[in-house]
Amino acid sequence: MSDERLDNVEHYLRLAMEEAERAVQEGNHPYGAVIVSASGAVIATGRNGVNTDHDPSSHAEMNAVRAACRRLGTLALNDYWLFTNGPPCAMCATVMIAAGLGAIWYGAPSGPERTMPTLEELVERSSGAKPTVHQGVLAEEASAQLLRLS
Amino acid sequence: MSDERLDNVEHYLRLAMEEAERAVQEGNHPYGAVIVSASGAVIATGRNGVNTDHDPSSHAEMNAVRAACRRLGTLALNDYWLFTNGPPCAMCATVMIAAGLGAIWYGAPSGPERTMPTLEELVERSSGAKPTVHQGVLAEEASAQLLRLS
Repeated sequence: MSDERLDNVEHYLRLAMEEAERAVQEGNHPYGAVIVSASGAVIATGRNGVNTDHDPSSHAEMNAVRAACRRLGTLALNDYWLFTNGPPCAMCATVMIAAGLGAIWYGAPSGPERTMPTLEELVERSSGAKPTVHQGVLAEEASAQLLRLS
Repeated sequence: MSDERLDNVEHYLRLAMEEAERAVQEGNHPYGAVIVSASGAVIATGRNGVNTDHDPSSHAEMNAVRAACRRLGTLALNDYWLFTNGPPCAMCATVMIAAGLGAIWYGAPSGPERTMPTLEELVERSSGAKPTVHQGVLAEEASAQLLRLS
């Protein structure tokens, strides 16, 4: 498989963590995401803006998906991968599945107290697109950052 | 219970159906929503804009929640009710729960082929807000409109 992204997953996860850092500097929650093309180009970034936007949907993955679709003029992100520092919520998981992302990589795992559906559960239940899901890239670093910024 | 909205649930559901009509006229999917205050004032409307916005998150309920939070400068819609013509998807259900809406009324039920979580399932699983959910107001009329517009 000749995919520029595969050699650089840690790099992209770190870019997502940098977005998370910016989100906190702006007064929001510590989450960031990036979307990457098959050639390895970052085509969209997103970070949490819930507090400053007064928008409960302004999550990192949501904002990255919206930016990518707007930029590309498409509703189908099949050739793209999304990287995010934390475990996606059910809202973001659903929109990522709807957008048909090829793969989703995330760092910190879900906590044991989570009751709402995980990305993995929603991909399993989807009757449409089923992105491959990779949890654990830079997991310790991403978890430590979340603890520090929260 | 002295709540202006209770006497007018069919009226608000019809307003949501009018939004759905507008969505289709604009080239989008047949879904509309309105958010109503305790005194019965419509404080936000939303309709599907997925195709024209190139935005997979541009659903009726999502757009209504975003508009209401922006207008009120809040993340907490606890005193508000949302009316929508069709069954909310998992994305919209999650953001409606996150926004703490007091009640959600919808018309047409989910189809038997649905595999993704319903609003009812997500409310049941939520460890935070639990809006009351009412399905079936103008159900036949809303279902017939969906069939006609789809």
